[in-house]
Amino acid sequence: MTSARPAPAPTEPAAQLDAFRRGADELLVEAELLQKLARGRPLRIKLGLDPTAPDIHLGHTVVLNKLRQAQDLGHQVIFLIGDFTSMIGDPSGRNATRPPLTREQIRDNAATYHAQASKVLDPERTEIRYNSEWCEPLGAAGMIRLASRYTVARMLERDDFARRFRSGQPIAVHEFLYPLMQGYDSVALQADLELGGTDQKFNLLVGRELQKDFGQEPQCILTMPLLEGLDGVEKMSKSKGNYVGISEPPAEMFGKVMSISDELMWRWYPLVSFRPLAEIDALRRETAAGRNPRDAKVSLALEIVARFHSAADAQRALAEFEARFRGGAMPEAMREVAIATSGEGIAIANLAKEAGVVDSTSEALRMIAQRGLRLDGEVVSDRAARVAAGATVVVQAGKRRFARVTVS
Amino acid sequence: MTSARPAPAPTEPAAQLDAFRRGADELLVEAELLQKLARGRPLRIKLGLDPTAPDIHLGHTVVLNKLRQAQDLGHQVIFLIGDFTSMIGDPSGRNATRPPLTREQIRDNAATYHAQASKVLDPERTEIRYNSEWCEPLGAAGMIRLASRYTVARMLERDDFARRFRSGQPIAVHEFLYPLMQGYDSVALQADLELGGTDQKFNLLVGRELQKDFGQEPQCILTMPLLEGLDGVEKMSKSKGNYVGISEPPAEMFGKVMSISDELMWRWYPLVSFRPLAEIDALRRETAAGRNPRDAKVSLALEIVARFHSAADAQRALAEFEARFRGGAMPEAMREVAIATSGEGIAIANLAKEAGVVDSTSEALRMIAQRGLRLDGEVVSDRAARVAAGATVVVQAGKRRFARVTVS
Repeated sequence: MTSARPAPAPTEPAAQLDAFRRGADELLVEAELLQKLARGRPLRIKLGLDPTAPDIHLGHTVVLNKLRQAQDLGHQVIFLIGDFTSMIGDPSGRNATRPPLTREQIRDNAATYHAQASKVLDPERTEIRYNSEWCEPLGAAGMIRLASRYTVARMLERDDFARRFRSGQPIAVHEFLYPLMQGYDSVALQADLELGGTDQKFNLLVGRELQKDFGQEPQCILTMPLLEGLDGVEKMSKSKGNYVGISEPPAEMFGKVMSISDELMWRWYPLVSFRPLAEIDALRRETAAGRNPRDAKVSLALEIVARFHSAADAQRALAEFEARFRGGAMPEAMREVAIATSGEGIAIANLAKEAGVVDSTSEALRMIAQRGLRLDGEVVSDRAARVAAGATVVVQAGKRRFARVTVS
Repeated sequence: MTSARPAPAPTEPAAQLDAFRRGADELLVEAELLQKLARGRPLRIKLGLDPTAPDIHLGHTVVLNKLRQAQDLGHQVIFLIGDFTSMIGDPSGRNATRPPLTREQIRDNAATYHAQASKVLDPERTEIRYNSEWCEPLGAAGMIRLASRYTVARMLERDDFARRFRSGQPIAVHEFLYPLMQGYDSVALQADLELGGTDQKFNLLVGRELQKDFGQEPQCILTMPLLEGLDGVEKMSKSKGNYVGISEPPAEMFGKVMSISDELMWRWYPLVSFRPLAEIDALRRETAAGRNPRDAKVSLALEIVARFHSAADAQRALAEFEARFRGGAMPEAMREVAIATSGEGIAIANLAKEAGVVDSTSEALRMIAQRGLRLDGEVVSDRAARVAAGATVVVQAGKRRFARVTVS
């Protein structure tokens, strides 16, 4: 379904650099990437993956799109499956929900991932590697040597480690070994460029450092923003239920895209659409000048459905959608609700009802019991929870009913 | 030469516990040790050693004496050589002075250590083990699993880690792995009791924790105070030059013991002498009541020389010593000097001369250049250094010339 994509294929290093930069959060170090590109040989571009079998959603495709772009520029894309640590499982033994994966499960999951990702990538030009290939031969001594290459203080610079350390939440010592192993993967693969979400920046930089340590030219790193989910609050994820799966039926997919807020739509555009940035900017200016934002949203929904299904499917989804909302009445992307409480705040069940995401407080309480009610993306477990006056929160019932509520 | 030792051999657990406690800094957990002893089977008692070839000195013998005591009580003593990490060398590669040791060097060093330690221990009843036996088979995965068993925060509770972390000095990640491997040694050996200096307490406790984690009965730990060196300031060590080597000639050994301060002698007594504590207390009371402290010091010097040489050697050393200091004039154990400076302090070279540890300030400056002058055990490298009024310091020139100086 990638045939709809225009194939720009600019070959000048500067033009390639522009292509890599599009939608990226950070590209480090541009001068170095330019130098690598100027050599004229295909770059080795790495994406590290957990060996789970994900339901790939639109959020995953942000990085996959970038990889596809690199393939179209003639570069070598490597899917790196972190099977080594997954075969260990949760080594602390404290997380019973994360049992070690067997070698077969990992191969199966990788194949599933690859099959789904092939809706974006060219499978023929994607190399799949497993890090047990070089991690197992390290041995205990090699692991100690690897650990000697980084300091505790620098590890604690990683945002989530820093936060947990400050707040007294435990960090097991082996968690410090994982970024080093991810970095060592770059050494083993002699990666020129590694891609990841913004939350991966620290780990990608460790790869740079280790490559230097091992006498290699350091990889460049490119981070992509994390796509926000349908709620516009949390990053898109299956567990939050705020996602658009790339295997969902056309109508479902279309409806979900149409349900997002106008504000969120403009954040999605450069990350999800393949249209030239100039076109997106023009669309945005027109909308600001008075054009119905619905047009821009329909355009994005059509593009996404066409990519994962077909142009015909996209048109059908649009027609069905319009038939459903006769007379052009659009569903609220994100209902905005104001609740006045004279300052004493409001109980969660009442808030959900007032916001219109449930029909009654008893339905709200039932959903809390079933872990189906969320506040700012977090499951509400306390039925007596209250929201204070002055707060603005996103309340969500089930997967599709959202409202942004301001309590006063 | 251990034949001079009285063989107490108490078999009652409570009496054994008393024997273990003698001179110890801490014994954890006494109730557990009592329980282990009550079973009537020999305990497995572990001492971890660096696989260097040390010049064993009186400081080392504090722990060795305790082990010998354990042997005499019928327990199994294990010399555990940390060859695994030493074969890795300094894995950071930043310390060129610590190259990896070969397997042969390690075996040779262990043999040297064992041979020297056999002046205290019964070599027939000492088991030598190498930790590569179980560390190598761990593999990279096993090392990660081991690292998962401890948190970063708990590692940073270790005094030296805490100090370095606070002061911004680097701690390499692999340094966190070493205590875990030392602890894992206890698991592999199924140790009942581990001995070490007070500076080893943290590592010994990690062994306890890991054994519990592995479903074993946790070892007890026994720490011995670090013997102070001749200067009474630093712990005894070869690099500080403040030591009594157990292979030194009788006269040298005797003279060194006679050179210590009276105060230090009383701190040495319970750690170095095998005499019953009641006898030592009596001697101390007599001295406090007016008996010449020289008598107690001669008695200690004689016991030490007799232990590492013979009773005859000890008597000869005493006779020579007395002949050298005719008329009973004793060398000052630690010269006490007061220097009045009307409050402005004094330059280090002048201080050394006034204290009588050098003959001239130019000799002092020469010794500074040769790194032979120490202040409170630390090498003085700044020839312009000053000691402020109000300070009391130990100044040392070369290995044998000390003075305690109070500047006013």
